[in-house]
Order: sequence, then structure tokens, then C-alpha cells
Amino acid sequence: MTSSRYRVAIHVVPRKGLLDPQGKAVADALHTLGFAGVTSVHVGRHLVLELTVGSESEAREQATRMCAQLLANPVTEDFELASVSVA
Amino acid sequence: MTSSRYRVAIHVVPRKGLLDPQGKAVADALHTLGFAGVTSVHVGRHLVLELTVGSESEAREQATRMCAQLLANPVTEDFELASVSVA
Repeated sequence: MTSSRYRVAIHVVPRKGLLDPQGKAVADALHTLGFAGVTSVHVGRHLVLELTVGSESEAREQATRMCAQLLANPVTEDFELASVSVA
Repeated sequence: MTSSRYRVAIHVVPRKGLLDPQGKAVADALHTLGFAGVTSVHVGRHLVLELTVGSESEAREQATRMCAQLLANPVTEDFELASVSVA
């Protein structure tokens, strides 16, 4: 089986309804800078992985397991695979 | 002039070619967990802002200024507006 390189982009975000103190701090700072139109800010992580695996579905499956095991906090965060493409 | 709510998603990533120690640490941890196919990891921030402004172009313009003034480190990071949509 040949392997290919895939680029997987992942968003890890604070779970809806939970406190997001970093987002609150950024919103306050933006107001202080004069950006009065800002009504909410949420701060998460944007991860880009490069994987050498056999297929796109394997890349998706491995990335999902990585999120569950390491990249996202299962108690406070949600994750989504934003994109999967050949690198 | 009427104002609308726009949702702006922003990616802030370590500048290409600069050291990304957090990405290196995550890659090492993934290898330890048995994900041998991981060849690189980059860790950035994913921000979602809600803005009440007059137009989509104003939302873009304000978000770009926010990145330059606060959200991204101009020395070590690059940013892009991943999406701008009506909230």
C-alpha cells in the first residue's frame, strides 16, 4: 500500500456555554482600543498536522483519535476537522 | 445607516521558518502515543469575533486592524481572515 502526505487542519474551541476567560480578556482589550462593535470573542487553537498515511479516511480517523487522546480537553473543549487535503 | 452582526474567524499562526516549540512538543507527544505518521505539527490560534458594524467590508477592515494592533504578534506570527459571514 502506498502512503501519501495529508494536511489536516483542526479547530479546538471552548465548549459553548462554558466560561472563556481568554475570549473575555481579548474582548475587553479590543473595547479599550476603541473597537466598540465587538460583541463577543472566542479563542481556540488552530492546529495544522501533516500525516503520512494510506488514505484520506485514515487521515481523518487518526486525527480524530489524536484530538480525543491529546489535542482537545474532553471536559471543556470541542474539536472539528476544518479541512483534510493532500499536502 | 443600519448595522449588522458579522462573525469573523481568524487564524493566527507562527510565521513559517520560525521555531514552533509548541508544535514540536505536540508532535513528540503524538509519536509517543503511537501516531508514527505525523511529520509536522503547527499550533496557532483560532479566534471567532462577533462584530456589529455597517458592512462586510468594514468587518474585514476592523478585524485586520485588530490583528495588527492586538491579536497577532507582528514579529513572530502571521494572520489571515478565515471567513467573514453574517452572524
